Amino acid sequence: MTETNRRWYLAARPTGEPTREDFEFREDDVPEPGPGEVLVRTLFMSVDPYMRGRMRDAESYAEPWAVGDPMRAGIVGEVIASEYDGLGEGDVVNGELEWADYSVAPGSTLRQVDPELAPVSTALGVLGMPGATAYFGFTDVGEPAPGDTVVVNAAAGAVGSVVGQLARIGGCEVVGIAGSDAKTKWLVDELGFDHAINYDTEDVHARLSELVDGVDVYFDNVGGEITDAVFRHLSVRARVVVCGQIALYNATEIPVGPRKLTTLIQKRAKVEGVLVRDYTNWGEAFERIAGWVARDELRYREDVTEGLENAPEAFFGLFEGENIGKQLVKVRER
Amino acid sequence: MTETNRRWYLAARPTGEPTREDFEFREDDVPEPGPGEVLVRTLFMSVDPYMRGRMRDAESYAEPWAVGDPMRAGIVGEVIASEYDGLGEGDVVNGELEWADYSVAPGSTLRQVDPELAPVSTALGVLGMPGATAYFGFTDVGEPAPGDTVVVNAAAGAVGSVVGQLARIGGCEVVGIAGSDAKTKWLVDELGFDHAINYDTEDVHARLSELVDGVDVYFDNVGGEITDAVFRHLSVRARVVVCGQIALYNATEIPVGPRKLTTLIQKRAKVEGVLVRDYTNWGEAFERIAGWVARDELRYREDVTEGLENAPEAFFGLFEGENIGKQLVKVRER
Repeated sequence: MTETNRRWYLAARPTGEPTREDFEFREDDVPEPGPGEVLVRTLFMSVDPYMRGRMRDAESYAEPWAVGDPMRAGIVGEVIASEYDGLGEGDVVNGELEWADYSVAPGSTLRQVDPELAPVSTALGVLGMPGATAYFGFTDVGEPAPGDTVVVNAAAGAVGSVVGQLARIGGCEVVGIAGSDAKTKWLVDELGFDHAINYDTEDVHARLSELVDGVDVYFDNVGGEITDAVFRHLSVRARVVVCGQIALYNATEIPVGPRKLTTLIQKRAKVEGVLVRDYTNWGEAFERIAGWVARDELRYREDVTEGLENAPEAFFGLFEGENIGKQLVKVRER
Repeated sequence: MTETNRRWYLAARPTGEPTREDFEFREDDVPEPGPGEVLVRTLFMSVDPYMRGRMRDAESYAEPWAVGDPMRAGIVGEVIASEYDGLGEGDVVNGELEWADYSVAPGSTLRQVDPELAPVSTALGVLGMPGATAYFGFTDVGEPAPGDTVVVNAAAGAVGSVVGQLARIGGCEVVGIAGSDAKTKWLVDELGFDHAINYDTEDVHARLSELVDGVDVYFDNVGGEITDAVFRHLSVRARVVVCGQIALYNATEIPVGPRKLTTLIQKRAKVEGVLVRDYTNWGEAFERIAGWVARDELRYREDVTEGLENAPEAFFGLFEGENIGKQLVKVRER
């Protein structure tokens, strides 16, 4: 092949907000698949808040990325060449690959995407990691019951928008918290949330006091002061699903806030972290979500940045709350 | 009756550490039981950290005490007069009564104590609310498994000392955190804890790094900086039982500390509050604990302050960590 392969590398560990200087864009040769491997040409690339953690040199649930290494991402792409029996040229696959035009990976680490089922980009969103995160976090950790009051933040995001709709489908009253009037309008008018709060212009605590009698399930993607406000409304035996803490990921000092464990005694509430990779039965989630999508009971939206060269900006936008729905980078037409 | 009844009243809501000025000691007439009621003469009175919360004018799981009202406590006493069919003169009973020589209460709110089974004072400790708290908090919320590493603080207290021994009996490795060498020595030498840390002279984080590979169950009676240190050692799928936060109860401003929810994602850990009154089957706990006590597999200690007039000082001592084992006030010989 004579084409070159554009790739993003981690140039430096960010301090606070990541900047373009923390990334380096280089052209390399297109890699060749070894035995058992597949060469994938990227169609869509995902940017996700968890990536900020992997840029940090700190112990977490995943190894940090090394400075000087290519950055990794959820990718949907086409198989260009295969040395793996289970996949052939033209197949569409999803896997953790690179911020690049082309990546190679062991075929066994990829899952095949059916282009007839839904647009292939959904394998990075509602029928991908964010959808599974919403499904297992909400149903398994949140333990919702019909009639429960559910609050979710980053509610217009890839995970939050699914959580809120699962809550509605499950017979719960659902309040979404998001950062713009365009988002809150979308949540209520299009996704069927009962209420939405714009945290940028409204006082979350005061609004919750008006809207709900107590919060039975709180699905937290954000942390920080929004979480402080919601904790004041937890019901007895409330469940708090800790899925993300994006408000804190760019902090340069250890974030501090009001201690809240006394609230947990008063309310006998449970706070539990969720990580989607602990669940193996993603197929169950996707089958159900695909059914709701097909019946227009669950809707999704994608926010698409064009061009691999603009991937860092798409990533930065997550921390500014710029995206409505799943933030994607479109790298190439199929 | 010609005897008078000494009673403690809440004179003022404490600001920060409670002082003697917040209490008033008065002599009243001995009350008379109405229909269905019983007159109880106090033998032992319990002082417990939760009482600090009821002196505060804030919403919690229990109504705050009103200024000017008699203070309430767990009492073991003798029935002096009964207008209730199920109890008769001379019976020993336990219930929530008053900081007083005599109290009346509906007979239906009292439980009879068998003086043959164990010293009657244990109905306020190892065979009372603290024992049941330890049993249900540890087994139901902590979900311990043999081989787990368990950390408990206020480990020489009424609840913590039972938790640690239940952990030992359950095949766990147990580390106690307490505030004096006399306490840590008692935990290891007498109660069979594997290790004990004196938080007053040792760095909890550094000592845990030496002693354990990870903490599977953390039973928290204290909160604050000790909890910050233990959170750094949580294992994947750790369970944190939030039973008390005595380090914070006298705070005059909202206590702040490092935000810790990100840790819960990394570790998929669960933090849950426990309140013993949510459990109805205390008899199950007492039967088992009594069996272990009888076989000398579970030991307890009582720290007895003599005289109702000294009850406030016994209460203040809880916040100074003065007691080893269950803090009681002995009001009268049986």
